Amino acid sequence: MAATIISVNSPADFHVHLRQGSMAALVTPHVRKGGFKLAYVMPNLKPPIATAAQALEYKRELQKIDPNVEYVMTLYLSPDLTPEEIFKAKNAGVVGVKSYPRGVTTNSEGGIESYETYYPIFKAMQEVDMVLNLHGEIPSDASANVHVLNAEPRFLPHLFKIHATFPSLRIVLEHATTRAAVEAVKSCGPSVACTITAHHLDLTVDDWAGQSWNFCKPVAKYPDDRQALRDVIAEGHPRFFLGSDSAPHPPHAKSTSTPSHGCAAGIYTSPILLPLVAHILESFGALDKLDGFASGFGRSFYKQPINANSHSKVSLRRSPGGKSVDSEYVLGNDTLVPFWAGKEIGWEIVEEV
Amino acid sequence: MAATIISVNSPADFHVHLRQGSMAALVTPHVRKGGFKLAYVMPNLKPPIATAAQALEYKRELQKIDPNVEYVMTLYLSPDLTPEEIFKAKNAGVVGVKSYPRGVTTNSEGGIESYETYYPIFKAMQEVDMVLNLHGEIPSDASANVHVLNAEPRFLPHLFKIHATFPSLRIVLEHATTRAAVEAVKSCGPSVACTITAHHLDLTVDDWAGQSWNFCKPVAKYPDDRQALRDVIAEGHPRFFLGSDSAPHPPHAKSTSTPSHGCAAGIYTSPILLPLVAHILESFGALDKLDGFASGFGRSFYKQPINANSHSKVSLRRSPGGKSVDSEYVLGNDTLVPFWAGKEIGWEIVEEV
Repeated sequence: MAATIISVNSPADFHVHLRQGSMAALVTPHVRKGGFKLAYVMPNLKPPIATAAQALEYKRELQKIDPNVEYVMTLYLSPDLTPEEIFKAKNAGVVGVKSYPRGVTTNSEGGIESYETYYPIFKAMQEVDMVLNLHGEIPSDASANVHVLNAEPRFLPHLFKIHATFPSLRIVLEHATTRAAVEAVKSCGPSVACTITAHHLDLTVDDWAGQSWNFCKPVAKYPDDRQALRDVIAEGHPRFFLGSDSAPHPPHAKSTSTPSHGCAAGIYTSPILLPLVAHILESFGALDKLDGFASGFGRSFYKQPINANSHSKVSLRRSPGGKSVDSEYVLGNDTLVPFWAGKEIGWEIVEEV
Repeated sequence: MAATIISVNSPADFHVHLRQGSMAALVTPHVRKGGFKLAYVMPNLKPPIATAAQALEYKRELQKIDPNVEYVMTLYLSPDLTPEEIFKAKNAGVVGVKSYPRGVTTNSEGGIESYETYYPIFKAMQEVDMVLNLHGEIPSDASANVHVLNAEPRFLPHLFKIHATFPSLRIVLEHATTRAAVEAVKSCGPSVACTITAHHLDLTVDDWAGQSWNFCKPVAKYPDDRQALRDVIAEGHPRFFLGSDSAPHPPHAKSTSTPSHGCAAGIYTSPILLPLVAHILESFGALDKLDGFASGFGRSFYKQPINANSHSKVSLRRSPGGKSVDSEYVLGNDTLVPFWAGKEIGWEIVEEV
């Protein structure tokens, strides 16, 4: 008989966007609502988190909103970053540096070719054991037949080169979506890991064809790619773990009411994350890997062990008829529609008493 | 110096959806507005055009709306169709039979496997020299890694098999979108031709990623596929000609205001078609092929020559600053937003005086 209660020890989401201001006030509490105790926080604010001091200030803002989550902070890789700032950041407890390929959304060429200009930064990061978080896509370029569906496979040579040059640098290929990426990370040494989102375990290209709410970057790929993501989780590979890439966008930015503008890329999963992941893992027979995928594997790679402060089991119980996902979340003037709005999830969080 | 006036002799659109009722009243006059004298009319009404009598009745309705267009009629391939009805249709002047793979939009399996059940129909069509119009996609099937981007290449074996079995049957692979389809049609005998839409000469997958207004079936593919479509036109291959697949959908069906439903597949090009095609062909150096692509090649394949009744040049003049595409067309309660709404087209029709 299938289990009716499952537990995860201190769930950790190793890729999440918590925004600023009123949007942060709405989404930050959803980390815990979704069952998570640790949030690895992306630095792509306006302006981006570029210094240790900014990271600490941002962390304090998030703690003010919900002090019961551990926020693990990152910096934004840019030409302004210096090895000196890396050392400062390390001392301040910042864990990672996120690389967004310049121009990945604007078809501009060239941005991605410049990883070598960051080698002094990577060298400093390797020295102090910080983590490089790679958005693994190259910009679309019709003249080279680069498009949203092969942007990730075409990026992989960059991963291999950085890994070969800095073999001890811990690298995470973020939100992998392709069989090619899974095989690439597997083929690398123990310093290279990979996050996988909940939505990429569910969607394929057919789901975002004509449906902007399922559009995200990297785009969901082919069924065979989804199968590769599922398989590597089902086999319990310890270098593949959850990073939700939960990214809030207001409804007007997700809908396409006119042909003059496309929709924002991003899918919002935070408030339903642990039940959703349990539901999806169970659908392909990997429920027994939930604890590793949603906590242990990532914590081990990131050296963020469960300690006395973070030790806390989160339990899910099977929801007999299924629990409907809320249609929206509202705070003040902000509204967010979550992934799977109105759909049923087979698991729900057992509230702590 | 580039030409400032170009002419096409009796432009012919060999694939268009003219709908019924109030929508037909709005879109049918757009055939002529877009510069076209002949419309090859799709039979996918509700209910579909299944008999010669229905085709004649539909033709009369269209003639009532605009008598100055030649409507070339088709039947809808279904299990109800008989060889006897094919003979009747031939006598009534119906030219083609359109095959829509059952289930291509609903992920159901099987529909496409049943072409052989239609062999008696194809035999009758070959005998009386009617044209088989193929929507060349197989249904998505995640278990076989079939999705919207490979649905057309995966269909091509069916094309080859039908062509091999009925070598004299004239076949048109409709709205081809891939290099594989172009090469497949080229490799067939003179009885197999191919339509290409205007929008597939412009769009790639990046354009409909997150933008539902650019979503159509078959979906626009990769830049290399678009290049193959452009190249076969630039070389002036006489078995590749224009079929716009212009398909009107109301704005509410094209936008994605909520995540609970996707948008309708289809792009509306009729009212701007000849200027648009001229503009796009010029962008890849094929303006000199406009007359063949938008009239001569299709008329020759379809044996719809320009005669005394249809002889009429349509001229385009270069529009110095570019002519803006209308933002919408309204008639009664119906509204339509055309492809390229608000964008500039470098050619405009010289009004007949």
